[in-house]
Amino acid sequence: MESAIDTHLKCPRSLSRRVAADYVPPFPMWVARADPSLKQVVMGHFGVQSKSGDGLANAASLDALRHIVATFQATDGPGHFDLVDYADTDGYDNRMAIAYWTDPAAFARWQDAAPVRDWWQSDARLSDGLGYFREILAPRVDQFETLYAFRDALPGVGAVMDRVSDEIEEHGYWGSMRDRMAASQTDWLAAKGELCVVAGDPQARGRVVIGGHDNLCLIRSGQDWEEAGAEERTLYLEEIEPTLRAGMDFLRDQGASIGCYSNRYVRHIDLDGRPVDQSFDLGHWRSLDLLERWAESHPTHLRIFVTFFRVATSLEKLRLYHEVLVVDAADQYYEYIHCHPNSGLMRDARIGADAN
Amino acid sequence: MESAIDTHLKCPRSLSRRVAADYVPPFPMWVARADPSLKQVVMGHFGVQSKSGDGLANAASLDALRHIVATFQATDGPGHFDLVDYADTDGYDNRMAIAYWTDPAAFARWQDAAPVRDWWQSDARLSDGLGYFREILAPRVDQFETLYAFRDALPGVGAVMDRVSDEIEEHGYWGSMRDRMAASQTDWLAAKGELCVVAGDPQARGRVVIGGHDNLCLIRSGQDWEEAGAEERTLYLEEIEPTLRAGMDFLRDQGASIGCYSNRYVRHIDLDGRPVDQSFDLGHWRSLDLLERWAESHPTHLRIFVTFFRVATSLEKLRLYHEVLVVDAADQYYEYIHCHPNSGLMRDARIGADAN
Repeated sequence: MESAIDTHLKCPRSLSRRVAADYVPPFPMWVARADPSLKQVVMGHFGVQSKSGDGLANAASLDALRHIVATFQATDGPGHFDLVDYADTDGYDNRMAIAYWTDPAAFARWQDAAPVRDWWQSDARLSDGLGYFREILAPRVDQFETLYAFRDALPGVGAVMDRVSDEIEEHGYWGSMRDRMAASQTDWLAAKGELCVVAGDPQARGRVVIGGHDNLCLIRSGQDWEEAGAEERTLYLEEIEPTLRAGMDFLRDQGASIGCYSNRYVRHIDLDGRPVDQSFDLGHWRSLDLLERWAESHPTHLRIFVTFFRVATSLEKLRLYHEVLVVDAADQYYEYIHCHPNSGLMRDARIGADAN
Repeated sequence: MESAIDTHLKCPRSLSRRVAADYVPPFPMWVARADPSLKQVVMGHFGVQSKSGDGLANAASLDALRHIVATFQATDGPGHFDLVDYADTDGYDNRMAIAYWTDPAAFARWQDAAPVRDWWQSDARLSDGLGYFREILAPRVDQFETLYAFRDALPGVGAVMDRVSDEIEEHGYWGSMRDRMAASQTDWLAAKGELCVVAGDPQARGRVVIGGHDNLCLIRSGQDWEEAGAEERTLYLEEIEPTLRAGMDFLRDQGASIGCYSNRYVRHIDLDGRPVDQSFDLGHWRSLDLLERWAESHPTHLRIFVTFFRVATSLEKLRLYHEVLVVDAADQYYEYIHCHPNSGLMRDARIGADAN
């Protein structure tokens, strides 16, 4: 058993952990580890938006996604990426490639190289009938945490990290998410500033840049039932998934009132757009504490939590995990190109507000 | 809005609160306040046990309860008391008088006065066919906290305190119970020592004294639907109570494995033994953190919590409250006289263990 906070990220605490040193979790969980040389990761979410039911746009969207994936193969491309899709409530289908870099400088070189830069900056992106978006978040290693109910083939950011931990101490209680994040040793991680429209006009459907604020929080909470046997598949699809979906629909539709800027319950797909038996929720929150409040008090989430507690020790092939980060205002970039005005972080961004 | 920790009990923290200074609870709750002159309270639980279905024993039990209540009227008697009953799973009915003193010296004088002392020490208590028990806990003011969803006629320990607070900050999140307790500012409140048989043999049904240990934790969590209108009565009796009962039954029957030494879901009664529309759970735990773990992860408690969150702002006459304490080994006294061996804290006490 070891702390979720890696040795080289430990520091004298000014804020205490929620539980005492003798706390023992009720079942084992693990986190991803990286060598001390890892200082900051880049998580890039690259999206394509097309009108639902429009076959031509759908095909074009898939081509665009393939183009984005092709650019990943260039020098300085990401160490790992996932493909997903989701339908939004404004009548659009969205596909996304989510990519992870372990070197912000490499990401910057990749993004600034002509083929990538020119494609995203091209006026064609405004006029080819599709919407496009980029959401880039670059948390430092002390600003994100992971949690896995398994030890092999870590997904998401775990795929670009170096190894898996021993069983960790900080899980199985409310507040453990915060306790796993190294920055929480000395910082409340409070939101500072406002989500704001930095450039463009969301209603005009042109090119819009949204500015994030300090300690904006992102959670990726994933499920993988590809290898699950009949029993676990039934457990997941009949017991966990409907409750999960209800909770995710609540956050998508009513999240604004409780600090959830955007919530996308996405399904993994292959390069042909076909669904794969993996999914995750991608939720942007104003702050970690607002995410905590929802997680620990909303009926749908508590129901998921109770089910997970019940089955955690008997899981075989069903893979449940999450990654959570907070991030500085300067380490976020959100750009929407010809997207509908409720897309992503545009919905809740204030026009005329200042990020800091 | 003010802190649940009264001004004169504030001290520089070595342990942080779970939530930041800008936390705002989702609905109002209040705590009991006392003048700084209050240093320690005494909570005395005086019980009578009779075989279920034995009419004569039942009548004798009621007489004994009345006798105990009569002794409360003597000099130095308690400032407040409640009468309750509960059936245990060993085939016995139990009646209890729960009394509160604000002055440990007055309690000591009361207990040592001949009429009280002699009655409890009399050999007649061992041979009149009934069981008797005394469970006395005397927490200092920094070792207990209260929480009320209402502001008038505070029950339990609140009845001997001086007034009600303004709306308090520390509630509506897991960990707030601990955060309301002044001692938690600098102390993890960890259990130290073992629950042990100090004198006598529980199996022999004689006179048994159980020794508590440091930071043993007691919760009284109450419900009062006496004045509730039809709608709130239905809410309580049909939605809250069955779930509450399931949770309390779990703790009563399976609590030993998770650190719950004793759990009694009791109904208020009058001096004739007739039920009143008030109840509470009285739970003894090895420690506050074990109580926290159960409360925040057990399905039945989460269901109660969710229901309470949903209705909290619309409660009119339904009165929900709790009081929670931790207590030094030296400030506890548990005596069982001719009770069955699973009574109260006897069940989990180790023979030959040392309290410290």
